[in-house]
Amino acid sequence: MSDAEEQRVKSLGGGSLLIAWQLKDKRVLIVGGGEIGSQRIESILHTDANICLLAPSHGLHPRTKRFLELRKDRITHTDRTLKNADDIELEGIDMVLTALDDPVLSAEIVSVCRSHRIPVNAADIPDLCDFYFGAQIRDGPLQIVFSTNGNGPRMAALVRNKIQNSLSGHEGEAIRQVGLLRIKLKEKAPGVGGDVSKERMRWMTKLCDAWEVETLATLDENIMERLIKEGWEKGRKVPTAEDMGLRPTKRRINWTVPWTEVRPIPTVAAFVFGIITTTMLMTVRARRL
Amino acid sequence: MSDAEEQRVKSLGGGSLLIAWQLKDKRVLIVGGGEIGSQRIESILHTDANICLLAPSHGLHPRTKRFLELRKDRITHTDRTLKNADDIELEGIDMVLTALDDPVLSAEIVSVCRSHRIPVNAADIPDLCDFYFGAQIRDGPLQIVFSTNGNGPRMAALVRNKIQNSLSGHEGEAIRQVGLLRIKLKEKAPGVGGDVSKERMRWMTKLCDAWEVETLATLDENIMERLIKEGWEKGRKVPTAEDMGLRPTKRRINWTVPWTEVRPIPTVAAFVFGIITTTMLMTVRARRL
Repeated sequence: MSDAEEQRVKSLGGGSLLIAWQLKDKRVLIVGGGEIGSQRIESILHTDANICLLAPSHGLHPRTKRFLELRKDRITHTDRTLKNADDIELEGIDMVLTALDDPVLSAEIVSVCRSHRIPVNAADIPDLCDFYFGAQIRDGPLQIVFSTNGNGPRMAALVRNKIQNSLSGHEGEAIRQVGLLRIKLKEKAPGVGGDVSKERMRWMTKLCDAWEVETLATLDENIMERLIKEGWEKGRKVPTAEDMGLRPTKRRINWTVPWTEVRPIPTVAAFVFGIITTTMLMTVRARRL
Repeated sequence: MSDAEEQRVKSLGGGSLLIAWQLKDKRVLIVGGGEIGSQRIESILHTDANICLLAPSHGLHPRTKRFLELRKDRITHTDRTLKNADDIELEGIDMVLTALDDPVLSAEIVSVCRSHRIPVNAADIPDLCDFYFGAQIRDGPLQIVFSTNGNGPRMAALVRNKIQNSLSGHEGEAIRQVGLLRIKLKEKAPGVGGDVSKERMRWMTKLCDAWEVETLATLDENIMERLIKEGWEKGRKVPTAEDMGLRPTKRRINWTVPWTEVRPIPTVAAFVFGIITTTMLMTVRARRL
């Protein structure tokens, strides 16, 4: 370890542990169905968990109501106003999220959850939370979460802009299609571990490197079949998008330094400026002669 | 809700819950001190948790050894080879991470943790994990985690490149300094809620918007004091970086379309090309005349 590295290690701290919590088919209790409650429902729907919503019907946010109608498969609603944290039913519950206007009741719920060792988040009471929801960017299966560890919402917004601008918006769909292709390939060439598995991974990697994200996003059942038949099965070749009859998308140009990227407007302007300058100089010179 | 939005809600799923788990002064048990173990130690040191490392001394990775020497304040080492998951001491432990080569023992540890309702991650056995460590980008207080939900490591690498390229590398330091300035301002103008709090937030926002990230990263004690004295205290003004005697950094140019950005190399090349073309044309024309 270098001196600089040792200094870094000595000063490590001040962060939280950003993790991807697994909730598939787990049970999450959400207390409160207002605006925050509706946001919590949406976050949890992403995870394939089952949601128990505890909230009086008269206070439901319109989005909460719509979620209840559209996702009967995942949400059960208990129409009740919780008065006392001890009345809460925690049997079989794996996580609790409070979305209440009442900080006292929220704090009581947190303490009941603690005694049952159930992870809990209380909206608006950071000190009582086992975990926070970071700022999120989502695009289908692609999830990005970031945290400035409480050092200012403005800086978080700035970081969000930078990240969002760096993505084309096709990454989510590309990731989804590549995932489907992987499954398909595994069906055709099964086997875990060993050579097949490595060969599959190599071929997928080559494909992802050779094709644009935008093109990967357009993969469909038919093209996947052909990719496997005309590429994988014929010597593990990686056909080009053009081979597959997809209209050619722009090449990924591997400029390593951003200041060499060609941007049409300034480049054309500079060219025209070069013409004008030279013409003027030559005209002046011609007059002098 | 629009039809498209309803369709989206109906198909929500397939993700995990990306959260910022709070571990300050909590106790995390790490079983195993090899390479993965050393990575786990580093992740947890970020969070200001206390680490109990259970691993035999002879199998420690060099980085693990260095962590033990440098961070005695946070790590206690139990020099023991765990043979039986039931021998594990879980009293007062808030999270368990296994980093073992032995999947059977790992699985047993997971099941003991489950019975104690302690969140657990078993390296290399995703099916047994309560949570995963996503792919991370870190720059001081700035943490970015992303997940493609298992849809391919290649796509994750691609997303990492895009995100990393979008950041200048000064964001972490800027966030840290802005955080310190916030604390300083709060000392000078205390008060929670109400007008002062709003005014503070407005002033901080204006400052973050007006100054470059690169300049915010250079804030020091002295400049912070002056910013408060010459800006905040004088009618909540936001001085420019130049006012503060900082060398002017490049303006943030709000080009909304990337193809208008000026890149020096192609621009100069186009200018020179313009000169050459015109000179040639004019020379040809001059000869003809």
